[in-house]
Amino acid sequence: MFTRHPARFCAICGSSIVRRVPTGDNRERDCCDGCGAVHYVNPRPVVGTIPLWQDRVLLCRRAIEPRYGKWTLPAGFMEVGETTADGAQRETLEEAGARIELGPLFSMLDVPHVEQVHIFFRAQLLDTEFTPGAESLEVELFDESAIPWDELAFRTVAMTLRMFFADRARGAFGVHTRAILPPPAPRDAGT
Amino acid sequence: MFTRHPARFCAICGSSIVRRVPTGDNRERDCCDGCGAVHYVNPRPVVGTIPLWQDRVLLCRRAIEPRYGKWTLPAGFMEVGETTADGAQRETLEEAGARIELGPLFSMLDVPHVEQVHIFFRAQLLDTEFTPGAESLEVELFDESAIPWDELAFRTVAMTLRMFFADRARGAFGVHTRAILPPPAPRDAGT
Repeated sequence: MFTRHPARFCAICGSSIVRRVPTGDNRERDCCDGCGAVHYVNPRPVVGTIPLWQDRVLLCRRAIEPRYGKWTLPAGFMEVGETTADGAQRETLEEAGARIELGPLFSMLDVPHVEQVHIFFRAQLLDTEFTPGAESLEVELFDESAIPWDELAFRTVAMTLRMFFADRARGAFGVHTRAILPPPAPRDAGT
Repeated sequence: MFTRHPARFCAICGSSIVRRVPTGDNRERDCCDGCGAVHYVNPRPVVGTIPLWQDRVLLCRRAIEPRYGKWTLPAGFMEVGETTADGAQRETLEEAGARIELGPLFSMLDVPHVEQVHIFFRAQLLDTEFTPGAESLEVELFDESAIPWDELAFRTVAMTLRMFFADRARGAFGVHTRAILPPPAPRDAGT
């Protein structure tokens, strides 16, 4: 389960944070009675690509937690000052050392229980000179039949790949929006 | 110009924040040498709808800054724990008192200079019992010919409406991604 460190101090003035509903608002926020700041928290965009070389898709094997050793599409948290397209290209370069021509938006997948929105663009590799970045153990091109479905790092990656191959099979690519629900609790969770 | 209050204190432990590149990272972050936390900052999703009743679009006149008195599509910051679709419906209810059937994604517009991504869904009003929420002065249905183009609050709203009417005219709705650049500097800015 995703947990966020609770804010105890105001990042601006250092006073104690009080959790309450600000005037004119309708939900509890991290409020500072020292300087009056309200510290809003919002979901974070994760941006990535489906990089193609001919019929094959580029995947990265993760060198970091979570999901060390599992395979993923190149993707990561969007940074301030960039666009979703900028971020998707940057992550593809950082994680896979891969230069791409970015294509259209393909999927926008809500993951509310981890406070994220995952956004994937289609992309064409410009060459095969890719190489693992610091966050990847290896980077490889996979035929559809070779995708390591049981070794994928994230459900949004599996869902994006499944929709991508389905669209490719029918010869028409769409833009897909879905919500991913929390994984089922383990059966021995004692409930 | 958008400016963020710089973080001076760690929200978790209250120590001073040091702006530096954490180990293994490649850009400056708000780092705490007290508890080791790195406080990442990411762009925020804004979610909203294009609510339709027959041929007309519902707009809200803003009762809050920024852009007090200007017209907007119902939209606002996505909250943690919800999906983009949840947030778009919530904002439509909060700002316009409007019950809708949410339709497909229509636009995803990057606004990097304010660190936001604006996401609009098409929507059908379920009835005309809408009523201004606390953040709206009035709520009204507009024919395309009556849209107050010069009194719209945000460029993402104007762009979304222009693309919506263009798609409607050609009889096919797409999903549109664009980046909005900073507004041009005033001519008398002394440069």
